[in-house]
Parts: sequence; structure tokens; C-alpha cells
Amino acid sequence: MGNDSSPPPPTTISARVKTIASLSNIKLAILDFSNDVKKIALDDPRRMTHSLKVALAITLVSMVYYLKPFYKGIGDAGIWAILTVVVVFEYTVGATLSKGMNRGFATLLAGALGVGAESLGSLFGPTVKPIVLGFLVFCLVGAATFSRFIPNIKKRYDYGVLIFILTFSLVSVSGYRVEKIIELAHRRLSTIIFGGLTCIVISMCVFPVWAGEDLHKLIVTHLEKLASFLEGFGDEYYKVSEGDKSFLAAYKSVLNSKATEESLANFAWWEIGHGKFRFRHPWKQYLNIGVYTRQCAYHIEALSSYLDAKYQIPSEFQLAVQEPCMKMSSEVAKALKELANSMKLMTHPSTSFVHIKNSKYAIDELNVALKASLITERDDVLETISVIAATSIIVDIIKCVEKISEAIEELSKQAHFKKPKDATSDKVEKAHFPHRGAAIKPVDDGKDGDLITITVLADDEIGHQEIDLDKNKGEISRL
Amino acid sequence: MGNDSSPPPPTTISARVKTIASLSNIKLAILDFSNDVKKIALDDPRRMTHSLKVALAITLVSMVYYLKPFYKGIGDAGIWAILTVVVVFEYTVGATLSKGMNRGFATLLAGALGVGAESLGSLFGPTVKPIVLGFLVFCLVGAATFSRFIPNIKKRYDYGVLIFILTFSLVSVSGYRVEKIIELAHRRLSTIIFGGLTCIVISMCVFPVWAGEDLHKLIVTHLEKLASFLEGFGDEYYKVSEGDKSFLAAYKSVLNSKATEESLANFAWWEIGHGKFRFRHPWKQYLNIGVYTRQCAYHIEALSSYLDAKYQIPSEFQLAVQEPCMKMSSEVAKALKELANSMKLMTHPSTSFVHIKNSKYAIDELNVALKASLITERDDVLETISVIAATSIIVDIIKCVEKISEAIEELSKQAHFKKPKDATSDKVEKAHFPHRGAAIKPVDDGKDGDLITITVLADDEIGHQEIDLDKNKGEISRL
Repeated sequence: MGNDSSPPPPTTISARVKTIASLSNIKLAILDFSNDVKKIALDDPRRMTHSLKVALAITLVSMVYYLKPFYKGIGDAGIWAILTVVVVFEYTVGATLSKGMNRGFATLLAGALGVGAESLGSLFGPTVKPIVLGFLVFCLVGAATFSRFIPNIKKRYDYGVLIFILTFSLVSVSGYRVEKIIELAHRRLSTIIFGGLTCIVISMCVFPVWAGEDLHKLIVTHLEKLASFLEGFGDEYYKVSEGDKSFLAAYKSVLNSKATEESLANFAWWEIGHGKFRFRHPWKQYLNIGVYTRQCAYHIEALSSYLDAKYQIPSEFQLAVQEPCMKMSSEVAKALKELANSMKLMTHPSTSFVHIKNSKYAIDELNVALKASLITERDDVLETISVIAATSIIVDIIKCVEKISEAIEELSKQAHFKKPKDATSDKVEKAHFPHRGAAIKPVDDGKDGDLITITVLADDEIGHQEIDLDKNKGEISRL
Repeated sequence: MGNDSSPPPPTTISARVKTIASLSNIKLAILDFSNDVKKIALDDPRRMTHSLKVALAITLVSMVYYLKPFYKGIGDAGIWAILTVVVVFEYTVGATLSKGMNRGFATLLAGALGVGAESLGSLFGPTVKPIVLGFLVFCLVGAATFSRFIPNIKKRYDYGVLIFILTFSLVSVSGYRVEKIIELAHRRLSTIIFGGLTCIVISMCVFPVWAGEDLHKLIVTHLEKLASFLEGFGDEYYKVSEGDKSFLAAYKSVLNSKATEESLANFAWWEIGHGKFRFRHPWKQYLNIGVYTRQCAYHIEALSSYLDAKYQIPSEFQLAVQEPCMKMSSEVAKALKELANSMKLMTHPSTSFVHIKNSKYAIDELNVALKASLITERDDVLETISVIAATSIIVDIIKCVEKISEAIEELSKQAHFKKPKDATSDKVEKAHFPHRGAAIKPVDDGKDGDLITITVLADDEIGHQEIDLDKNKGEISRL
């Protein structure tokens, strides 16, 4: 304004160029968006199925509402059938069951209490009645809202309390007389049950998504992700390996998995038996496995910071501890893989103990190597510290994996997993350890001594042990 | 059944004893429950306030619905006002605003589209109309449900899409003619706006709970928790300290804070300016600080496993590295405290750099100590490894805290925090560092060199530095 040196207005040509540019921008944005949508759909095709299932349920219920003969029977209450489907239909069967049950029982309870409140109010005559009802609504809604902060209620009945508040307020202040309320409640409840049942039937029968199965698979995937990091760690730490490195970041999704696991376990609690899982499968034990898996992932996060500080030329010291260090991480990775495998097949995790045992032997080897090297190596202190710290974290990881193994053992007991004498896991064991020496038998009890108590072995013990480990090495490299 | 050795049926006395026992059990359970409730209320009194606010809002809206003169005006649509309050009123202002806005706009959009669908259907005559409408509902509901899987939509408009699905199906299949629908929509929309506004006004004016403020406080608390762990770590590691040890576990709540932080930041996005925060405060930057805080907590989790492996009598080696190790952890704890403090006061975090710098000097000291000790110490390898690993993790923690400091620096720029020349932070600085030597001036630029590049200093440099650190030590112990 009043500034003569302002740029001239755009010419028609530049304006047209701009229009074309912004048009192509819009085109680009649409293309981007449609690619995103495609990716979301392809990442998990069940998302498409779920959308179609919801559409089907709502269309069905709407049609019943639309058809005149039915409409007359249920009247405006038909609206509650649609409302129920919209809010109750969730992605997993468990979540749908949970919401449906909560909605049904809460409506019933709140309806009854609402009728009671209405009758009580009527005793006081028309002028005092609104005050009495208002007071009752205030107290019950306040108490119900507060109850949503109680963890056990929040976990399983949060939606029920919400519906309780809604129904109680609606019924008690509806201003109808009791007989009319009961008629209305009957109609409303029957449409809610109709809507809820439609959801539950479609959710369970048309390509069902079970929260329990998802939780089971999630835990298996997490174990596998940790295993691939540890499997690749040795190579990555000691030489610049080429190729796909996505396995180095995959474990990160484990770090923040607590909320997902807990909600899946909650929903699984509501589910009936399905596939390999009975009703009342010990879903709670999955949460314990999850806790140790995350703890392991925290240690891996700490370990991964040593990958950045990789030194171009490995020092003498680094080479001295390379073998036991790589064996520790590869054996613990194998243990995790076996654990994941036994969970996947739902068999007793007997083969993983061998690898945990082997990784513990590698710790002893490491101690020997360190004892020899700490004396000769005098210069690069920083590098030495870094290598020692990394190996020490791997020792912690081995401890964590032992805890995971115990938790899975407990799960296998609670859920009656097949014993190794059964077909599959026996085959696995035989294939992996054909010539196992007497010293590295499969251990039948994983709790034989905490890692903290390990002491450096006397020389002759180590000599004996190294022979066994050498025997074993041939087998390991063949796997 | 048929088993003669089964225990005799309980006598009346034992039955009575049982009744008394079970009665006292019930009494105990009730007492337990009421204690739990008391604890939940006292832990955060805002929960009580929130419950009363919701009760107030619902009672108000119900009363309007109940009063006959109003009731005639809004009719059955009054039900929508109560429904809106029940589902829209959330704990924080941001969440309430988000749900209210989503509900309003989604109803408007879906209502318009529903009227359009109804008109389109009417063109086809009464027999084909239900098929056309059913097809439209199926397509739109399917697409809308799928859109809830798109992260950006899920983050901010999930509830809006739900309401869109609900309203569109209700309007398009309502079976009314267009004029009647518009009248109905007008009435329903006005009651929804009435209910929504009641929620928003009560939520913002009566003891408001701001998501933004909560996020700000949460990040500060997290920094303080990490600081108290690191502050106490040295004492805990080197001697069995007595007294309250809750600070050693407090950091654990940081590990799983991602979901809470993200939802608070999302809700804060909807909030208007409040207290010290403008509208469009850089809430996103809080999430970045949160990421580094969690990373730091993962390292602390790894570090805390070394507390279990504490040795009764510290070795020569352990004593040699004790001083730099304790200084590292106490200085980085001070840096975190200063960062938390500057966030709390919303001032530029200039004083924390000194402590980060000091902790870096302590790393150099440690290197010297290690260089000297690694040669003399020949026996307890395991213990030496454990000590070296713990110190190495502290070095990683220092790197993390540097990142936290940079993220807070960035926040202080984006949110225009007060500069240190202003009142508060200048005072803080003066109080803490009265006689600082020339070598440890406050640093005006925190990014002067990554920790990875640190090399062991030449002997004369170290001598010079140690004098400064000794000078500083007197000050540190006085703080």
C-alpha cells in the first residue's frame, strides 16, 4: 500500500503458468494420496474386508429400518439399531463382543434404574419431581464418571459406564409415565439387541479378525525381530556388510508395543475359542512375555548405539574377542528363533535351552579372551571400552532371553502346548543337533544358576569346554 | 458321588462361622475398594472435579429437555443434546473441543450428503429407491470406514468419520421426504450445537484441564525423574545407601510414555491459548523432546541392571574410576535438572550447557583413569567388565542429554522463551556458579563437537583441566 516499488501484478501468461503448476501440484497430491491408500490396503488386506463388513452390516440394518412393514413395528426406535452398529462394530471380534455386551447390559441396568428414579420422582408431585430427578441424575452421573478412572473398570467396562450414563439420563428425564417408558425401553432394547447381534454375527462369521490370534502373532513377530537384529549384529559390528539393513531397525517397533499388547489381551479376554486357542486361553501370560521382550529391546537399543561408533580397522583387542562375541549374539539369536518357532507351532520350547547354554559357554570363552587381552592392549582406550561395553550388554541380553524363555515355558504349561515327544519339535531337535557331545545335552531345567554367579573357569575346565564348543561349531556353521 | 470317605456336610456352627467369615471378607473387600477409590481421588483431585463437571453438564441439559415449554419446541430431538454431552465431554479441554468440532462438522456434512442421496433416490421411483439408497450407503460407509485406517485421519478426525457414517445412514434411509428431513436436521443440529456448546463452555470455564499444560508438565516430570535416577546412581553403585529408593524406579514410567504424549499433543493442537501458552504453541516439538527422553530412559534401563550386580567390596579398579564416574552421572543429572527447570520457567536453557560440558570433561578424566588402571588390574575380569560397561552407558546417556538439550533449545526458539538476560534465569545462573574459572565458562553454543570425536587429552591438558575441575568441585558440593 503506497509502496511504489512493489512487484508488478502477474501477467496473464505467468498466471496461466501458475494455474498449470498448481493443477499439476494437485494432480501430484492426489497421486500421492492414492498411493498411500493403496499401501495401507495392501499392508493388511483385512482393512478392506473390515470396511466392507461394516458397510454390509449398516446397509442390512438400514434396509430393515427402511422397509415400511418393519418400520411400523419398530418405529423411530430403528434409529438405535443403526446407532448401535456404527458404534459397536470394531476391527476385532473381541472388541465388538466387548462393546456389544457392555452396551446391552448397561442399557438394561440403566433402564431399570431410570424407571425406578422416574417412579420415585412421581411420588413427590409435579413441582418437586424435576428437582428430585435432577438431583438423582447429578449424583449417579458424577459417581459413574468417577468410576471410569478406576483402572479395572476402565480396562473392561469403560464403554458400558458411558452407555449407563446415557441411558439413565435419557430414561429418567424422558418425561413419560412409567408404562410408556417400559414400552419404549422394550422397543429400544430389542432394536439394540438386533443391531448388536448383527455386528457380532458378521464380525465372527465373515473373515473374522481375532484379537487373540493377533496378539499371538504379534509376540512371535517381536521375538523374530529381536532375533534378526542379534543374528546380524556380529557381522554388522565387525565388518561393513552389504545388502538390506532393515533388520537393524525392525526391533524399534517392539519398544512402544505395551499399549497395543494390553488392548489386544483385553479384547482377547472376551473372545470365544477359535483356531488353536481355547476359550480362556492364558492371554495374561502373553503380557508377561511382552514385558521381557520389551526389556530385551531396551538393551538392544543401547547396543545399537555401538554400531554407529564402528571403527574402520578392528584392533588386536577387537579381533581377540570377536569369536566369542559373535558366538554369544548368534547363539542367543538362535535361542530367540527357536522360542518364536515353538510359540508359532505351539510346542514346548525345549530346543531353545541348548542355544542359551551355548551362549553362556561363549560368555566364559569371552572372559578368557578378555583376561588375556586386557594385559597386552595398552593404547586405544576408547575403542576398548566401547567393545567391552557392547559385549557386556550382550550378556544382559542373554539374561533377558533366559527370562523370556522361562515365561514361554510357563505359557506352554498353562496352555498345554504339545510336548517335544510329539511330532514337530522332535524333528526340529534332531535336525539341528545330530552329534551333540555329552557336555552340551539339552537341559531339562532352565533355571540352573543365574548369570551373575558365573565365575571365570580354571584353565583345565576351559580346555575341556573349548573342545566341546569346537565340536559344536561345525554344527552351528552348518545351520 | 458314591465316595464314602467324602467329608461330612458342614454343621450349622461351621456354616455360621463360614457366614461370619465370608461377611468379614466382604467387609474387607469393601474397605479395600473404598481405599482404592480414595487413593484415585487424592492422587489427582481433578478427577473429582471432572466427575462433578460432567454431572453438572448432563443435569443442565436434561433439565432443559425436561421443562415442558422447551420440550415442545425441540421435541424428541432433545435426546440428541444429552447424547452429545455424554459422548463429547472429555477430561481435557482439547479432547472436548476436538470431539465437539468433529461432531458438529461431520453432522453438517453428512446431513447435506444424506439429503442429496435421498433426492437422488427419489428420481428413480419408489421401487428402485431403496436399492439406490442401499447402494449409496454401502459405498460411502465402506469408504469412510476404510479412511479411519489412514493415520492422518485417524489422528484427528476419527470421531468425525464415525459421526459422518452415523448421520449419513440415518438421514438417507429415514424415509422422510426432503422438506421434512431438513426441518428435522435443523432441529437435531441445533440441539447438538446446544449440547456441544454446554460441554465446551463448562470444560473451559470450570476448573479447566488443558491437555497442553499437562503435556508440558509431563515432559518436565520425565526430565526430573531421569535426573533423580542419575543423581542417586553414583551413591547407589558405590555404597549401599539407606533410605527411600523410589527414585530408582521412577524413570520406568518414561519408557512407555509415547502414546500418552502423542494423544496429549493431538488434543493440545485443538486448544486455544491458555496460561503461558499461545494458540499454536509448538506442541510438536514436545514430541521430539519426548523421543530423546525415552531414548535416555532406555539407556538408564540398561544401566540399572548393573545396580543388581553390585559388588560388596569395591575393587582397586572400581575405586580408580569412582570419581570421574560419579562426576559424570552427577553432572549430567544437574544438566537434566537445569533443563527441566528452564522448561518449567519457560526460560532459555543456557545454564545446562555448563553441566554437559563438565560431564564431558569427566569423560576425559575417566579415560585417563582407565588408561592407568587397565594395565595394573589383572584379576577380577567380570567385575572390571561390568564397571567399564556401566561407565560406557553413562557416556551414551550424556550423548542423549545433549540431544534433549538441543531439542529444548529449539523449542525455546520456536516458543520464544525468555532469554537468560531476563530476570529469573540470570538469577539462577548467578546463584549456581559464583566463582567459575575461565576454563568452564557458560558455553553459548551447545553443538561444538559430537562426543564420538572426543580423544584422550595430552597429559598437560589434563593437569590444567583437573585444577579447574577441583575449583568447581567445591562449588558442586555446595549446591
